[in-house]
Amino acid sequence: MKHLVNEAFLQKAAALKPQLVEKIHEPKAMVEIKKGKVVKSQSIDQLGQMQLGKGDKVCLDFGNHYVGYLTLHIHSEGEHPDAPLFMKFKFGENAQEITDCSEDYNGGLSRSWIQEEWIHVDVFPAVVQLSRRYAMRFLELTAIDTSPHYKIVIDHVEFKAVSAVEESAGGSYVTTDALLQKMDQVSLKTLEDCMQDVFEDGPKRDRRLWIGDLRLEALANYETFRHYDLVKRCLYLFAGCRHENGAVGACIFTEPKVFVDFIYMYDYALFFVSILLDYYKASGDEATARELWAVAREQLMIGLSARDERGVVIEDSGAFLDWKLGLNKQAGAHGVLIYSLRQGIKLGKLLGEDVSLFEEELVKTIRAAKEYLWDPSLKLFVSGKEKQISYASQVWMVLAGVWDQKTNQEILACLVQLDPEMNMVTPYMNHHFVMAYLECGQKDKALDYIKSYWGEMVKDGADTFWELYNPKNKKESPYGSSIINSYCHAWSCTPTYILRKFFS
Amino acid sequence: MKHLVNEAFLQKAAALKPQLVEKIHEPKAMVEIKKGKVVKSQSIDQLGQMQLGKGDKVCLDFGNHYVGYLTLHIHSEGEHPDAPLFMKFKFGENAQEITDCSEDYNGGLSRSWIQEEWIHVDVFPAVVQLSRRYAMRFLELTAIDTSPHYKIVIDHVEFKAVSAVEESAGGSYVTTDALLQKMDQVSLKTLEDCMQDVFEDGPKRDRRLWIGDLRLEALANYETFRHYDLVKRCLYLFAGCRHENGAVGACIFTEPKVFVDFIYMYDYALFFVSILLDYYKASGDEATARELWAVAREQLMIGLSARDERGVVIEDSGAFLDWKLGLNKQAGAHGVLIYSLRQGIKLGKLLGEDVSLFEEELVKTIRAAKEYLWDPSLKLFVSGKEKQISYASQVWMVLAGVWDQKTNQEILACLVQLDPEMNMVTPYMNHHFVMAYLECGQKDKALDYIKSYWGEMVKDGADTFWELYNPKNKKESPYGSSIINSYCHAWSCTPTYILRKFFS
Repeated sequence: MKHLVNEAFLQKAAALKPQLVEKIHEPKAMVEIKKGKVVKSQSIDQLGQMQLGKGDKVCLDFGNHYVGYLTLHIHSEGEHPDAPLFMKFKFGENAQEITDCSEDYNGGLSRSWIQEEWIHVDVFPAVVQLSRRYAMRFLELTAIDTSPHYKIVIDHVEFKAVSAVEESAGGSYVTTDALLQKMDQVSLKTLEDCMQDVFEDGPKRDRRLWIGDLRLEALANYETFRHYDLVKRCLYLFAGCRHENGAVGACIFTEPKVFVDFIYMYDYALFFVSILLDYYKASGDEATARELWAVAREQLMIGLSARDERGVVIEDSGAFLDWKLGLNKQAGAHGVLIYSLRQGIKLGKLLGEDVSLFEEELVKTIRAAKEYLWDPSLKLFVSGKEKQISYASQVWMVLAGVWDQKTNQEILACLVQLDPEMNMVTPYMNHHFVMAYLECGQKDKALDYIKSYWGEMVKDGADTFWELYNPKNKKESPYGSSIINSYCHAWSCTPTYILRKFFS
Repeated sequence: MKHLVNEAFLQKAAALKPQLVEKIHEPKAMVEIKKGKVVKSQSIDQLGQMQLGKGDKVCLDFGNHYVGYLTLHIHSEGEHPDAPLFMKFKFGENAQEITDCSEDYNGGLSRSWIQEEWIHVDVFPAVVQLSRRYAMRFLELTAIDTSPHYKIVIDHVEFKAVSAVEESAGGSYVTTDALLQKMDQVSLKTLEDCMQDVFEDGPKRDRRLWIGDLRLEALANYETFRHYDLVKRCLYLFAGCRHENGAVGACIFTEPKVFVDFIYMYDYALFFVSILLDYYKASGDEATARELWAVAREQLMIGLSARDERGVVIEDSGAFLDWKLGLNKQAGAHGVLIYSLRQGIKLGKLLGEDVSLFEEELVKTIRAAKEYLWDPSLKLFVSGKEKQISYASQVWMVLAGVWDQKTNQEILACLVQLDPEMNMVTPYMNHHFVMAYLECGQKDKALDYIKSYWGEMVKDGADTFWELYNPKNKKESPYGSSIINSYCHAWSCTPTYILRKFFS
């Protein structure tokens, strides 16, 4: 596949690559985990007293989620080691991953994402530095074998955490509500751990710049760390390596060099527009907005071109919206198009660009939504030939402002009452549901909802917010096993954005 | 345990550490192995055409046994890699190890000796360099997982073989007998691959300097590579770090620093004397022989002190002799003492030292052997309270020269006819059996025997001679599974010594 490469943009992106902040953390406790729960915890001071021989294991708890690099200092006890140490490392973002069995995993994503390593150590004392980066709170170490003549003692464990930002730079959310306070902290930690060379989706998996995640991370970042350059870098990466037709890809690889993935998502490409607008508004960096306007404009043109003769976005536009299986994406994608046209018009006007074409198309697109996707009897939007009713369709049409605020309120009320089978599975979709409440002025409902969703995750022990969360089925995974789920995921980090922006 | 350390000796040993010779080897074929046998072989040229995805494996055959370091060059095919590669490496000195299952291993030695590694590769193209050293002919690579979007291609594989000697420096054994020719070559390769920083017992396992192996390697070395300095280095290592009572240990660790193992073996400690004598005779290095004479003398004194009131070596002297379970070591150890006294007397006389004490003790010890360990009715030596008859006892008493040549011939004939249950299990013991034939002038029998034993290993496909070989039970292992056996083992390397010294 050919790409549209703009070397000047990529050079700007490269120049903005952040110097990561490093911080050393040591384990806080030795724990025992059974069936995914910490059932026993003891002082880390005893680690140095433990001798590990064949089959012995120890699980360390670092007390919080970190992203970075592990170093172990090991010495031997007994006779002189007469065979190598064969050792397994298992990293868990949460306790569940420690007891999940990776050999049993047979899901759709690569087993290689499971954070395990096997090493041999030939000479003691040894300083073992694993070269790869891990996302973790828990670390299980198993001495698969030493020899009958010696055991090992772990003298020192350190984890060099990395992030593009200093934790303390994130500020705080002042409130008397302990749950909201905690939700803000967990959001901030999620964001911090996802902010690396780029805004990653998840530091465990996929460790990559996805535009849907970037949009939400950038919003949270403006309310917290205000690391504008990292957003700017990501904008230039997406603009600098695009699909042949000019479309911004859904995600970008940066190693060994910048390379746009083959995946195109209709909604994700359009979000380039809103990310650029948000960035300009937050940073005041007009030069970047002006330089990237043409790319944003092109995304709108591509978005508009995916409409049928009625002016409705086609069913197979390639939109993402949510992981929900069976979700018909037509109405949701149409909502995203209207939403993005509005953002594009705003951005164009700020830059003094001619946006008359988009204004005309906005009118037509809203009219098509009302005419072909709205069911007046149900007072809900329907999607596709089978007129599917979903959360995603209503939420995006509300965010698109197809109707007035009062009707939007009625839509959401009706939606919640109906609670259609096509519900929401990702925090990403749940975020937009909350934003829909805020869009129609229902702040109380928005707050109640984030408490019931992200607040529930906090109560379930989240140190960072998870990629997937269904309060009704907490081990749910679209990947065949929750062991492959990401438990620090960018698109879940928005409570800090919502709380600080709308509830301060 | 305190050690007797002589820093000057250790400095001499350090100064003699060899610069290893490096040579790059590439795989010669891709093979399929079933039940430990190569059942199919195809051109290595096709490796670069193969795409390996989830679960795919390929087995490479390097055509001969090598010791060293692996480098792979890998690129990806398909979409941009969106997940790490999770890959397993399995090295086999022979084909059997490739199909043996390491998870099933539950033997007495550490599983860590099994040459397997698991790695993750995050960025492609990748140059994967494994940092540990391996001993192998076969390499099985398994792509445990890539991702549904990409596969890997192995562009280039190289193995940097290392040894203290150049293969070509070993010379050759000129003969019209193809089997003997091959046995010489396999011996030479075994020796070459065991000659590293020290004379190792086996480059797969234990990778360590054992005195019993050193003695035989040194003899083979004098007929082939003539790397006198490596023997000298090993003598200084054993002399430089001894047990508190002055005894030479059975083996020496050299990493992270020189350290004598806690294991003491009665016969092995005495062999320091014969190694020093052999070294002096081969190299003419009188200064070393003179400097280490005191250590050799001390080993004889310690050996003599382990006799009972009758002048017979005690049953639990700690001799090794052979791996044979149930073997009573008394008579064999007594034979080694006599043998070593003779070597010590020779060495002392060459150096102009007073050896009268040893001459007196030699007479006494021979007399004790005849009086208490000889069964005149059986015309065989018996060992221990239960008067056990074994190969080891007869062989060492013959090598000790307790009786005259004719009686010795009768002993061996009687032994072979009786074929006692206490037979020989290691090539090490078999070597001494051959030497016993040579000692009593029966060259034909010696040659027949090495052909039937080492020759059989050659016919079984040995590239290097094995640690253990029972022609009647070829998968036998004292360790619970042959997967842990060493298939390039120093104490098996003596056909080149025997052929070149006695049959040239």
